[in-house]
Formats: sequence, structure tokens, C-alpha cells
Amino acid sequence: MIEMDLLKRITAPTLLLNKDRAVKNIERMAAKAQRSGVRFRPHFKTHQSAEIGEWFKDFGVRSITVSSLDMAGYFARNDWRDITVAFPVNIREMDKINQLANRIQLNLLIESKDALKYLRQHVTSPVQLWIKIDTGYKRTGIPWDRSDEIFQIVEEINQAPLLNFSGIITHSGHTYKTSTKDAVKEIYRDTVSKMKQVRELLLSAGIDSLEISIGDTPSCSIVEDFSEVDEIRPGNFVFYDVMQLAIGSCAEEDIAVAVVCPVVAKHEDRNEIVIYGGAVHLSKDFILENGRKIFGRIALPQATGWSSLIPDCYASSLSQEHGIVTASDALFDEAKTGDVLMVLPVHSCLTANLMKVYHTLQDQKINTIHNSN
Amino acid sequence: MIEMDLLKRITAPTLLLNKDRAVKNIERMAAKAQRSGVRFRPHFKTHQSAEIGEWFKDFGVRSITVSSLDMAGYFARNDWRDITVAFPVNIREMDKINQLANRIQLNLLIESKDALKYLRQHVTSPVQLWIKIDTGYKRTGIPWDRSDEIFQIVEEINQAPLLNFSGIITHSGHTYKTSTKDAVKEIYRDTVSKMKQVRELLLSAGIDSLEISIGDTPSCSIVEDFSEVDEIRPGNFVFYDVMQLAIGSCAEEDIAVAVVCPVVAKHEDRNEIVIYGGAVHLSKDFILENGRKIFGRIALPQATGWSSLIPDCYASSLSQEHGIVTASDALFDEAKTGDVLMVLPVHSCLTANLMKVYHTLQDQKINTIHNSN
Repeated sequence: MIEMDLLKRITAPTLLLNKDRAVKNIERMAAKAQRSGVRFRPHFKTHQSAEIGEWFKDFGVRSITVSSLDMAGYFARNDWRDITVAFPVNIREMDKINQLANRIQLNLLIESKDALKYLRQHVTSPVQLWIKIDTGYKRTGIPWDRSDEIFQIVEEINQAPLLNFSGIITHSGHTYKTSTKDAVKEIYRDTVSKMKQVRELLLSAGIDSLEISIGDTPSCSIVEDFSEVDEIRPGNFVFYDVMQLAIGSCAEEDIAVAVVCPVVAKHEDRNEIVIYGGAVHLSKDFILENGRKIFGRIALPQATGWSSLIPDCYASSLSQEHGIVTASDALFDEAKTGDVLMVLPVHSCLTANLMKVYHTLQDQKINTIHNSN
Repeated sequence: MIEMDLLKRITAPTLLLNKDRAVKNIERMAAKAQRSGVRFRPHFKTHQSAEIGEWFKDFGVRSITVSSLDMAGYFARNDWRDITVAFPVNIREMDKINQLANRIQLNLLIESKDALKYLRQHVTSPVQLWIKIDTGYKRTGIPWDRSDEIFQIVEEINQAPLLNFSGIITHSGHTYKTSTKDAVKEIYRDTVSKMKQVRELLLSAGIDSLEISIGDTPSCSIVEDFSEVDEIRPGNFVFYDVMQLAIGSCAEEDIAVAVVCPVVAKHEDRNEIVIYGGAVHLSKDFILENGRKIFGRIALPQATGWSSLIPDCYASSLSQEHGIVTASDALFDEAKTGDVLMVLPVHSCLTANLMKVYHTLQDQKINTIHNSN
């Protein structure tokens, strides 16, 4: 239940977090990983919060993923000892790499021979290396069928005493472009098939052992059995969002965050409600639905936090500080100037990054990397 | 000239500011306002920095615009005494309104009768009110041809001893959708014509006097003579960006900010360069050009800061922390892993909001509201 005074005290856009839902999301994913016998290494770029990180420990999580060395440093200061930076090695941050590798088990992603050469020359503490494989997303990684190139990199890693080859890692981000569970499952099957072929080739070429790590939230949410891989790294699932709902990764009741936005004006001629809540709160990420850009979906405050999504209502455009909500007749009549609407974000990772602080339904404030010391 | 050590020390995405260009942009706009005999009330939501605010004082600026009461509070603490919050009155922030109105000349925008009623009942210090008029952008404001509604609001303002009617204000944001100077000029002419009609009607109905305030950067950059209005409120012009360049508001040499992004990988098969620099640095705003999404344009570092834009090179997609740069053959060959690219942002306001701190070419660090105390 929501702390009754919380909504009354809110004057400006506020990121509300339903902790029960987030904990259930963590519990569900941890249980699924355990059933499949794989390591659960959640991506913490979504919440970026040491306090939320603690919730994962209750489910046995000891290994995490982050998207920058600064984030790795923040979680290392908060007692995480096994961190993967899921980002191609940035050789300009060599000092940060060495400082971290000296304190924790640091796992890095490599795909560039030039970066590997630099790393070999400058690394001063042991680092675990994963080769980033592109299985079809075409963003980063070595294409999965370039086995010679992959093998060469493994050999170069194995020649460096401080570099240890852990395995092959991929992010099938193309699942984000789908809109059916079957399409996600098909991408997962294809990804695993390609990753297993890479592994077989490396094993047959004399590599002792190597793990397979996969990552995206749609696959990890929709697929039930991960026993063909060794590690999963979903991040967004802790909160989910409107994009994941559209893909089919989650139910509406799994979405754990909403931005509380005051109503500041109404335009009856076009059923539009102007809210205090814009691009600097929600981000400009959107999904397309029947040619319409959707920057967020709308719910109303209620005793349990927020209501079901109101049909045919959505944030249809965002300026720096304001949003325009295209409203149904019912919502338009109900929402008064000075009320609040709950805007469920399209991309919760970017929204959380912008909002910097969470308020639970019980009005506990939860800090992030952005407001830690 | 750029401080030579600055680029060497950069390890992660860094917002570089060419102060000379920003000051020239301020000087040019201030001079144009002065020639037209209008008040120059720049919008500070773009830079959100007290230190950059000081640069405007050298050109006689004493009145500013901001997009939130929190931003008004920040600049009030930094000795600004005449601040317009260009956002519909949010009655949930009544306490902040009264605190600010007690200390400075606070100018607010009203368009909602409900908000005005609440304001009348709760205001405790004098507030200047501007009626927000919609001249065609259809985001906020009362449509310009609803003269009865506008007149009623003026009357209600005039009945409240602490509320003072200043005039009518508009933001012709539809100039952002254009791509020729003539289209911008046409919108400006249309805007001024409508605003003057509103003023005439109010004057003929017995209102003593009222000002006209207009705002968007494209109009203020492209139009030369503002003598038909009383106040201009551009914001983005201090830095400009790729979007303004596409509209025709600025020359390439006027763009004053770039994000320095390390190169972390290269993909020869598709001429793509992976950079450290993503949605949490640049924002997900984009422009469309021949059906391609452009999230930023690319330059190289050079002694004066950064080079001319490299033809046919652009940030073609952004993840949370990485960006993909679609490169020409020449750039692809030149850029090495560990080098930096300069990414000129599509929307400098959102980029500055995310980056939170500027580094001048002389390596002076400039703080913003986000890292003030």
C-alpha cells in the first residue's frame, strides 16, 4: 500500500518504485537461473543503486554486470567483488582498470585486437576476459562465424600471464525490435546455436574450457530453460517498462516504476493534458504503435500505488520539462489541474538514470550512483 | 586554442565547451535585441549554469527565463532578480512560488483557469503573470483566436491584488519542424500577426497595456528585426547544435559544444566505429535525414578545439553507454582505437542536462545546477 501522505507531498516529477514488484522480478529471474543451473549475473546499469543491489544478495547473487568502469567502482565500493563491465575495453581508462583489478575480480569484454594489445602491455593485476561475439545484433562484437579471428584473440589472451580467458559473451539486442514471444524465442535459439558453434570450434582447437554468457531481458524473461548457456545477464527486468510490455517480456503488473507527474493544464479541443514531466525526466526514448510515438503510458494513483494502464492514453510528445498526454474522454474528464498522473516509462533504465533517486511506495528514498558521495 | 593536455587526460565522455563561440552567440543575440529595442530575456534551461549566466551579464542581460521553479531558485541564489518560469503554473509548487515571489520579481505563465483560481487564493507576494498563447504549435497555451477566454483571464488576474498582468507570451516551437530560413520567417510573421491581433483586442477591451514575448531559437536566430514584439527568450542559441544547423539557425562555426568520445572498437565490414558515448551522454533525440536517424555529427580534435564536420559521418544509433558512428572510408581509416571523436549533439539542451559539467577548451571546469551545493 502506498504511504498516503506521499502523493500529497509530491510537487514535481518523482520516480516511484514499487519495491514488492522489483523484489518479485528479482526472485523470479533468480529462481529461473537456479533451475537452469546457470550463473545469474544481473546488469546493474538499470537501477545504478547500491541499496537496490542489496535486494539481489538475498537471492544469492554475488556476481554482477555494469556498463562502465565508474559504475564498477561504485559497486566495488559497495562490497561487490565480481563485476563484469559489459562494454568494449576502453584503453583510455587503463588506470581505472588496474585499480579495480587490484581490488576485485574484474571481468572485461574484448573485441578489438588493438585494445587487447594495449591491455597486454599495461595490465598490472589479473583480469578475466570475455570475447564479445556478435550473433546478429550488429552493434558490437566479432561476428560469430569469424572463428579464425576469435581463436587468434584467445591465443593472444593466453599468452599474457595477467589475462585470463573466461569465455564468449553476447547481447542479442535485436530481441528489442520484436513484438512476439515466439520471435524472441527464435532469436534466443539462434543465439545459443551460434554461441555453441563458436565454443565447439574453440574447444576443438585446443582451448581447455570456456563459458557462454547471454544477456538481453526479453530472452531471459520469455525463455524458461537456459541450461545450454553458463551465465545470464539481464538488467531491465528488475523494473521492466512499456517497451518490455510491448515485446511481451512482462505483464503490466510486473512494471515496478512510474514517474508521478503533476497535471498543469488541459486542452479540451484535442483531449490533451499537459503534465510536468518531460525529456529530462522520462528520456526521449519511444515505441511506435500504429504509427504513433509513445513516450510513456498512463495510470492513476491508487492505494496500491498506481492503477491498471488506462486504455488509449499515452504520453504523445515530450519537451524538456513538459509532456503532452493524449487522453481518453474518461481520463480527460477525471484528471484535474493539480492532480497527478502516473507515467510508466518506455525505457526504465534511461528514466532511472535521469531521475537519480527513487521513492518507494512506503516513501523511503533510495539513492543511486548519481547522489552517492 | 585547446589546452594540449586536456584531450590526453580525457578517459570517458566529456562535454567540451568552446567559450569564445558561446560568448559570440550571446553577443550577437544581445546586439540584435538591442537594435530592435526589445528586452533580451534568454532561456537558461539550455546551460543551467550560474557561471555561464555571468557571461550574459557582460551584455547587459538582467532578465532571464527558466523552465522550472527549482531552476528559478538556483538562479535566484546566484543573484538573478527577474526570472520568468516558462512553464504553465504548477499549483502543487505553491510554496516554492511564494518563497521565490517574496525574494525576486517572479514572472509566471498562466493558461489554466483552475490554476489561476488556485493562485489567486494562495499567493502571498506579488507575481507577474503572462498569458500563454498558442499561435500554432499546439503544445500549450490558449489558442490565439479565443479572445473571450483570454480577456476573461486578464480580468481575473486584474481582480487579484497580488497578481499583475504583464502581457502575452508564446513559443512557436513549430519552427523546429522546418528546414528552411523562409519557413522560419513565415512562422515568425504569422506568430507576430496573431499576437498583435490578441493585443489589439485586449487594448480595445480596455486593458491598459501589455507586452508581447516570443521565444524560439530558430526565429530569434533567423529573423533580424524584432521591433514588433517587446521581448525575446531564445535559449538554445548559446550553444546551438546539429538540429539548429539543419534548420538553418546557425552556421557550423557557431556550435559551441561537443562531447569527446573515446573510440573503443571498429567494424570494417560496415564502416562503423564504436564509441564510448551513448544515450546517457547525448540523449536519444535525433533528426531524420533521408530516412536516416542522426543522433550526432562527427568532428576530429584539432588545435582550435574540433575540426569541421566530417561529411557522411554521424552517430547512427545509441545504446545506454555506447554509440555507433557510421563513418566515411577516410574517417574509418584515420580513427584508431583509443583515439577520441568529437560528437556534436543533436539537442544541446538535453546533452548538457545529462553531462552536468562543462570543460572549456582551456580546461576550466564549469558547474551546473546538477553539481551545485
